[in-house]
Amino acid sequence: MSDLYMFEKPLGMRDTLPALYRCKQRIKNILNDEIGKWGYDFMATPALEYEETIGKVSAIVDHHLFRLLDKEGRTVVLRPDMTAPIARVAASSLKEQPLPLRLAYTAALFRTQQFEGGRPAEFEQTGVELIGDATAHADAEVIALMVSLLKMSGLKNVKVVIGHTGFVNAFLADIADSADDESALRWFLYKKNDVGFREHVYSLNMTDENKQRLFMFIDSRREHNENTLAKIKTLLPSSHGRVIYQYLSQLYLLLENHGVSGCIDLDLTLVSHLDYYTGVVFQGYGGSKGFAISSGGRYDELLAKFNRPLPATGFGLRLDRLIEALGNCQGNDSINKTVVIYSEANQEKAFKYAEELRKQGQSVVLQAQAGLEDAEAFVKHFSSAVDFSL
Amino acid sequence: MSDLYMFEKPLGMRDTLPALYRCKQRIKNILNDEIGKWGYDFMATPALEYEETIGKVSAIVDHHLFRLLDKEGRTVVLRPDMTAPIARVAASSLKEQPLPLRLAYTAALFRTQQFEGGRPAEFEQTGVELIGDATAHADAEVIALMVSLLKMSGLKNVKVVIGHTGFVNAFLADIADSADDESALRWFLYKKNDVGFREHVYSLNMTDENKQRLFMFIDSRREHNENTLAKIKTLLPSSHGRVIYQYLSQLYLLLENHGVSGCIDLDLTLVSHLDYYTGVVFQGYGGSKGFAISSGGRYDELLAKFNRPLPATGFGLRLDRLIEALGNCQGNDSINKTVVIYSEANQEKAFKYAEELRKQGQSVVLQAQAGLEDAEAFVKHFSSAVDFSL
Repeated sequence: MSDLYMFEKPLGMRDTLPALYRCKQRIKNILNDEIGKWGYDFMATPALEYEETIGKVSAIVDHHLFRLLDKEGRTVVLRPDMTAPIARVAASSLKEQPLPLRLAYTAALFRTQQFEGGRPAEFEQTGVELIGDATAHADAEVIALMVSLLKMSGLKNVKVVIGHTGFVNAFLADIADSADDESALRWFLYKKNDVGFREHVYSLNMTDENKQRLFMFIDSRREHNENTLAKIKTLLPSSHGRVIYQYLSQLYLLLENHGVSGCIDLDLTLVSHLDYYTGVVFQGYGGSKGFAISSGGRYDELLAKFNRPLPATGFGLRLDRLIEALGNCQGNDSINKTVVIYSEANQEKAFKYAEELRKQGQSVVLQAQAGLEDAEAFVKHFSSAVDFSL
Repeated sequence: MSDLYMFEKPLGMRDTLPALYRCKQRIKNILNDEIGKWGYDFMATPALEYEETIGKVSAIVDHHLFRLLDKEGRTVVLRPDMTAPIARVAASSLKEQPLPLRLAYTAALFRTQQFEGGRPAEFEQTGVELIGDATAHADAEVIALMVSLLKMSGLKNVKVVIGHTGFVNAFLADIADSADDESALRWFLYKKNDVGFREHVYSLNMTDENKQRLFMFIDSRREHNENTLAKIKTLLPSSHGRVIYQYLSQLYLLLENHGVSGCIDLDLTLVSHLDYYTGVVFQGYGGSKGFAISSGGRYDELLAKFNRPLPATGFGLRLDRLIEALGNCQGNDSINKTVVIYSEANQEKAFKYAEELRKQGQSVVLQAQAGLEDAEAFVKHFSSAVDFSL
């Protein structure tokens, strides 16, 4: 093996050294414990799935899939998300369980990257799926749980932005003359590029009234939640608009009752990169970072792809982003370790001593003096040292 | 998507449903907690590595590797074991840490399978690597830790078989006339096929004295440990044999002092399927199953492949096999959950009630009556139900 490549890893692949590992583990424990308290059942699915089943149902774009051929020549992908695999299980192995299902996971996901130094190609995500409940109660529950997780992790300034796919779709379809116009406007929304959106609206060939509606729409992002709710009826005066208004009003009241409405920012312009969402969509933010740490929404049509049409809602929370948003969390995760150095003559005594400390829950390294090259340097890394080498 | 393939998974890939997940999680927690008490630091490496770095250093045979091409056309493999990746990290990112290093992992490993219904192609392994200590103390520590893990998991009849790669190599080289003879004999040892071994010895063209040595060797498997130790000097009367005798005698005394010698079965005929071992090798058994649950050994030449020649020892424990050996552990892992059913009018009260129970550490499902199709069937699955729907 040439020295040049000896320590290289594939694009976007990273090691997790002990300090970061402890930090991740501590946070995973907090999240998993809380998810368990909300009655969700953790499960796991394989890292590899057939492209024809999971690859095509997943909302992750094609060129982000890791693909390989199995021995029979069928294309297999590394799972790019967990929603599709859990839908597969809900529609098969868990078919006989009473609804709704409350399922959760912590899993590594895989998405190919184009550039070094960019995003990780493998990352851990914790998430929940609530399957078989079409009501706003289910959406409110998963949003409230997401807020709870972000807060319990220690994140400051937790904020959840909530939008509605059905609203954006109906509103843009109502106004735009063509699918091209619609998808151009949607692109500016996705990029949260208000200036680009406005400029594009000026350039469009449409009535002034519709342009004003588009401006009112993009401006609604800065409104207080109550005003945002009220805008729905103005922007989309159809019966469909009224249904969405009623739904979001109910959701907001539920979030008040869950005690989390202080973190909520209703935003009618929110669009997600995942195209399986059919209703409410939401993203979690916090710390001083501008990126979404978690995201989710309602996906009422995905389960039908596995022959079990069922409404569903859920979210995923990216551990790497949460840890980045938390700042230097590794400092909080140093551990107290005792080292017991022993000579051959004292080995029995030293072993008994270490066993006793471990039984009390302490972390103890037993180290034979004979195995040490530089005892001084070694001992320095421990919070206490006991010498059985004399 | 055709119905036929809708729920299919690639060969050897399995879902982990909630009951099994809880069981695995409980056992992982026990193992990881104990490993932490012995002062090992957990870390992680990526699922994908370059074939030219990790694939070729790993001891897993070529046709068991999952391979794919990255965007630059280089071959990438799904990690088949963790020893090589940890050696890579020990030789690079952890280069400045004082020796010895005590590292641990719990990770999914990937090995392709040929037949459906056979072994899993993805499985979790927990293991430790003790790097930079060449003494028997290090080997005794990892063996004692392995015994402790197997016992703490609840496994009955824990047994660890210990052999020595250096002994088998020197003994067979001393007796066999050709590499072919040697590898044939080694094959019968690997398969633990004593009858085949004996028959093969009869057929060999060698002195009666050497045939007697081979029979004495294969018979030593059934000896008590003290007699097995004594046999080393008879079977391999060279100075190399004396060094191995002294090493194994010291190891055995250390294991006595660690309080685990009651589980130990010294077996000079033990050979491993991993070819990077250079000294002691060992395998853990238990329950009523005949398969090895864990295995490990000393590998003093692997680190040199990453330009950092260091002695090392360690083991890996397969969680799937441990759970199989434990029998039906899923029954022990049902959870107490309370369900709170609420009507819209009572939502605030119900949320407060659930929050209170969760704060006390209970697992509580909040369920709107409006989201239930069959309340009776749903409630049945809970250990208690509270009705806020009136």
